[in-house]
Amino acid sequence: MKIPILRLGRILLVSIQDDLTDNDAMQFQSDLVERVAEIEALGVAIDITALDVVDSYMARVINDTACMVGLLGAEVVICGVQPFVAMTLIEMGRDLLGANCAFNLEQGLEILNRRIATRGDIHIDEDEDD
Amino acid sequence: MKIPILRLGRILLVSIQDDLTDNDAMQFQSDLVERVAEIEALGVAIDITALDVVDSYMARVINDTACMVGLLGAEVVICGVQPFVAMTLIEMGRDLLGANCAFNLEQGLEILNRRIATRGDIHIDEDEDD
Repeated sequence: MKIPILRLGRILLVSIQDDLTDNDAMQFQSDLVERVAEIEALGVAIDITALDVVDSYMARVINDTACMVGLLGAEVVICGVQPFVAMTLIEMGRDLLGANCAFNLEQGLEILNRRIATRGDIHIDEDEDD
Repeated sequence: MKIPILRLGRILLVSIQDDLTDNDAMQFQSDLVERVAEIEALGVAIDITALDVVDSYMARVINDTACMVGLLGAEVVICGVQPFVAMTLIEMGRDLLGANCAFNLEQGLEILNRRIATRGDIHIDEDEDD
């Protein structure tokens, strides 16, 4: 199963519809990082609305993918985590650490756009002047 | 004991009044995530003003709940941590990691509203002017 990677300007959208096998996951990750590098994507939205169950393996795949994309320098948002999925992930002691979460793709894109617009503005302390 | 979940626009308020049993905690968590998903809540304020003691189990329940809600894409603020509770939590080596804290519900709502308005902005501190 090949996961389609859609382009929206400098943002990439991927939607995971089903559990991935080891090979699928590796293929997906390499496709995605290639594509991010190719178009110098600024953001990636990973939509998992269709996943009713996320086991420990899939959680790791999603986390790893988010971290890989983050290492390339793009922002990542994971969209559409289902309530039951959130509960089981936390109960398993897992989390989706590599990224922000958003309720749906629309909100995810909003967050991405905003993060991209304010990139580098990590004001821990604000300056008095300027 | 059922914990009431109040709605205030796109924000949910929950107030934990007492220690929860295992079953209560699971029921509460599943009620809350369902409700967040249902109204696509943007923020959740968990008020624990009434808790004079938070043991290790309750700390985990609060943390897990905050993480679950975060996975769905909502902001979370924990309100009203009592001084003694703060001391014992830290002495136990526990923390409330999943969320920001606020002194009371009013401040919690303020923080939530501001976080929602600037979602995706990576500002840890807000600017004076916007």
